[in-house]
Amino acid sequence: MTNWQDLVAAKQQECKDKIPPEWRLNAEEFAFAKNPRLIEMEIGRSILSSEEVDITENYTASQLLVKLASGSVSSWDVTTAFCKRAATAQQLTSCLTETFFPQALERAQYLDDYLKREGKPKGPFHGLPISLKDSFNVEGVQSTIGYVEFLKHEPAKTNSALVQMLLDLGAVLYVKTNIPQTLMTGDSENNIFGRTLNPHNTQLTAGGSSGGEGALVALRGSLLGVGTDVAGSIRIPALCCGVYGFKPTTNRIPFGGQVSGANEGIPGLVPSAGPLAHSIAELKLFMSLVVGDGQAWEYDSTAVAVPWQGIPRGVSENPVLTIGVLAEDKHFPLHPPVKRALDSSIEMLTRAGHRIVRLGEELDVAYPSRLAFQNFVYGPHKDLLAASGEPPVTSVAKAASPMFSGPFPVEQGLGPFETIQALYEARQQLLNDWRKTWTEHQLDVVLAPGAQNTAVAHDTYGWPPYTAIWNLLDVSRPLSTLATILTLTVSRLSDPLFLGFKAS
Amino acid sequence: MTNWQDLVAAKQQECKDKIPPEWRLNAEEFAFAKNPRLIEMEIGRSILSSEEVDITENYTASQLLVKLASGSVSSWDVTTAFCKRAATAQQLTSCLTETFFPQALERAQYLDDYLKREGKPKGPFHGLPISLKDSFNVEGVQSTIGYVEFLKHEPAKTNSALVQMLLDLGAVLYVKTNIPQTLMTGDSENNIFGRTLNPHNTQLTAGGSSGGEGALVALRGSLLGVGTDVAGSIRIPALCCGVYGFKPTTNRIPFGGQVSGANEGIPGLVPSAGPLAHSIAELKLFMSLVVGDGQAWEYDSTAVAVPWQGIPRGVSENPVLTIGVLAEDKHFPLHPPVKRALDSSIEMLTRAGHRIVRLGEELDVAYPSRLAFQNFVYGPHKDLLAASGEPPVTSVAKAASPMFSGPFPVEQGLGPFETIQALYEARQQLLNDWRKTWTEHQLDVVLAPGAQNTAVAHDTYGWPPYTAIWNLLDVSRPLSTLATILTLTVSRLSDPLFLGFKAS
Repeated sequence: MTNWQDLVAAKQQECKDKIPPEWRLNAEEFAFAKNPRLIEMEIGRSILSSEEVDITENYTASQLLVKLASGSVSSWDVTTAFCKRAATAQQLTSCLTETFFPQALERAQYLDDYLKREGKPKGPFHGLPISLKDSFNVEGVQSTIGYVEFLKHEPAKTNSALVQMLLDLGAVLYVKTNIPQTLMTGDSENNIFGRTLNPHNTQLTAGGSSGGEGALVALRGSLLGVGTDVAGSIRIPALCCGVYGFKPTTNRIPFGGQVSGANEGIPGLVPSAGPLAHSIAELKLFMSLVVGDGQAWEYDSTAVAVPWQGIPRGVSENPVLTIGVLAEDKHFPLHPPVKRALDSSIEMLTRAGHRIVRLGEELDVAYPSRLAFQNFVYGPHKDLLAASGEPPVTSVAKAASPMFSGPFPVEQGLGPFETIQALYEARQQLLNDWRKTWTEHQLDVVLAPGAQNTAVAHDTYGWPPYTAIWNLLDVSRPLSTLATILTLTVSRLSDPLFLGFKAS
Repeated sequence: MTNWQDLVAAKQQECKDKIPPEWRLNAEEFAFAKNPRLIEMEIGRSILSSEEVDITENYTASQLLVKLASGSVSSWDVTTAFCKRAATAQQLTSCLTETFFPQALERAQYLDDYLKREGKPKGPFHGLPISLKDSFNVEGVQSTIGYVEFLKHEPAKTNSALVQMLLDLGAVLYVKTNIPQTLMTGDSENNIFGRTLNPHNTQLTAGGSSGGEGALVALRGSLLGVGTDVAGSIRIPALCCGVYGFKPTTNRIPFGGQVSGANEGIPGLVPSAGPLAHSIAELKLFMSLVVGDGQAWEYDSTAVAVPWQGIPRGVSENPVLTIGVLAEDKHFPLHPPVKRALDSSIEMLTRAGHRIVRLGEELDVAYPSRLAFQNFVYGPHKDLLAASGEPPVTSVAKAASPMFSGPFPVEQGLGPFETIQALYEARQQLLNDWRKTWTEHQLDVVLAPGAQNTAVAHDTYGWPPYTAIWNLLDVSRPLSTLATILTLTVSRLSDPLFLGFKAS
């Protein structure tokens, strides 16, 4: 039997070998990369041509899609540019797990030929490279989600529902991105693919669990990436890496067919998939194309067949919004930059004519945090570390918890059915309290901090109270950005209202 | 301590006393009512004035609402007419549990005054009496759902979410309707309120569990009633009593705040509320007003904030539908009238230019029935009969089951968590098989029998395979009618497409 270290060494070599020699950073660049402020430097420019720098830096996803659809740029050139840039990002931040550049280029060639032959694009994502969190299955590519035990698994034989949909919509897939061991911490480190560094400051966390996406998008190795989120895993890396992330309501984006270490079907918090990108417009683009007319259901029976709502009726007619502002929780005080961002946003929104309602402290995040936590821990868990003998990474060993803030909401030691019912009732009660607040104040949106903090030192992210609450409530649709360090939640409406503003 | 019979006798007397003496049938009419074909006779005409007969017989709900909103008929007159007609129906078929005629008339007076004072109706349901299944809580009215033990409960102190919503929309509430003991059989009998008879033939079942609604609507004691459905409880009485019933997807109509004997929160099939009425147009009216712009969420945090979709995009542009026809299941063969209705419907739809796709026998109803059944029985159950000492009624004692058709889908004797996961996986597999069929054939709708049979003799309805399947699949939205004895299921779309056709 092979020991776990040998399995890991073999995989690491395999991953390294997949980066073409001409795409590798040279010694000088690696020395340069010792500066923690990676993103401010221009490392890797020796690898990309000036056209490739232009492609990856000067366009939004929408702009590139227009050029791709008209044939004024080829998918081959765009794919090559993003493959190179992703390879560079990987060498600097360990943001990737799997790369499949040759398959991506083959796909790009197919799409270029298709456009020439048919005189029309394959679909609305024609030719655009889209990056994926490691949990998504791509046919022919391994899905280990950072578990050494899963290195024994064969490459995926089928595509996840969303992966198949993105291909049908014309996208190019080229990389999968790094995650934390267990997928349940805010620090994207595991024993196979190492630790993802924050490109703004490598001494800080890139966030997690979709941390690889955060770093890759920040370094423009991807314009549009897909993460998943059950307590903040899209929003935390977006917030840490200075990009935009959106966690939709559950069952909106096809989630099915991913690799998971969790026990699916046990009642509790349900994860959802969603985009990370450089702008709100790109998040909107992703949501409106994937949700579309409700055809997501055709790919995944867990996705609801509800068309994308766009700006809801009533709101467009009345541009004055009633905005609830979540109170600071005394157990989770806000750091000064977060407070500043919140205050300046409120000031800007007020100046723009919106109505601000300060929500009471009884709507805290400590109790929902404990309820979310109890939902995560009450059921059976698979020990996927023991099987291979790999040790837990630091952030997993630390086992962050909100339990310092108070007792378990539901009595411990009840039988399984009693526990399930009590957790259900506690959650319904909370949903009901929130519904009453929304309705009484006629809120259109809730503005809240995305976290206590901006990006923090490695392995110190801890429990994420200001994101987990929205997974527990779920009817809500939060949006986090670094620029604002805020979460916008739209709950009375069936789809998000994107508010584009930037706090300084 | 009072024995259960005394509790029942007191309640029965209370209910009887609430029917004003001048609304009681005379001896001659009772003798007349021995004819099982109640609906063909005109019993109770001595109680209603000719204006009241006109109000209750010659208008749709929409037509009455127009008259009510303009003030050309008063809510007082309309409410009086339906109260009288409901009282008559009750004396003939035991279709009611609670009546609150004085409160209804007080409400009608308030609405009449409101219209005069404000010059506009209170809401889109202004002045219209709407009947409710007994499980809905109405402030000041008892909710026993036929359990003797619940006779000890105080009258409800709050309204169910839907009840409050209907009041805000301007409706008048006047009666609650009869159900089976346990709410889990197709025969609406219990030890308190007796057995609901089928007004088309009193020797046959009215169906269940919303059997009181079926009989009341059939006798035009209500134009619009609300039932609930977890295995067929709206569709079965609609089918048995010759009216229209619609079970929406779960969480569409506010369901919260009802009285239940079930263990809420345990994973399994989730019930939904929906309308029973005299026409498809009235079902549509109810759905579009209650779902509306998604404001149901404001009343009930379990209701999704998704606007009513109406005719979905794509369908209105292309009126040629692809209609899947469910195969007959050999374990549940169709009776000749059901076969005839199905065949003639297919013929009519073909003639109208629609495309018919015969679905394979692998999409049976026997396996989904067993999976639904196992979902119903695997968890803990409250014994609500033992507490009072009342015996089970015949249909409950019979304990209908689909288990003659094959084994339990999931191994019995597993622990709670293992069982929950295995049931979840089995259901996901089935959903996935159906999704594939739907997508491969590009179905717009599935046409299926609503049952093996039309109304059957009392206590013989048994297990409902052709309705329970749609609760298990849930993404589907079935519609049953006696006229067609068919179920239409629209699954790729987020809301139902109502096809108005009548098979002979």
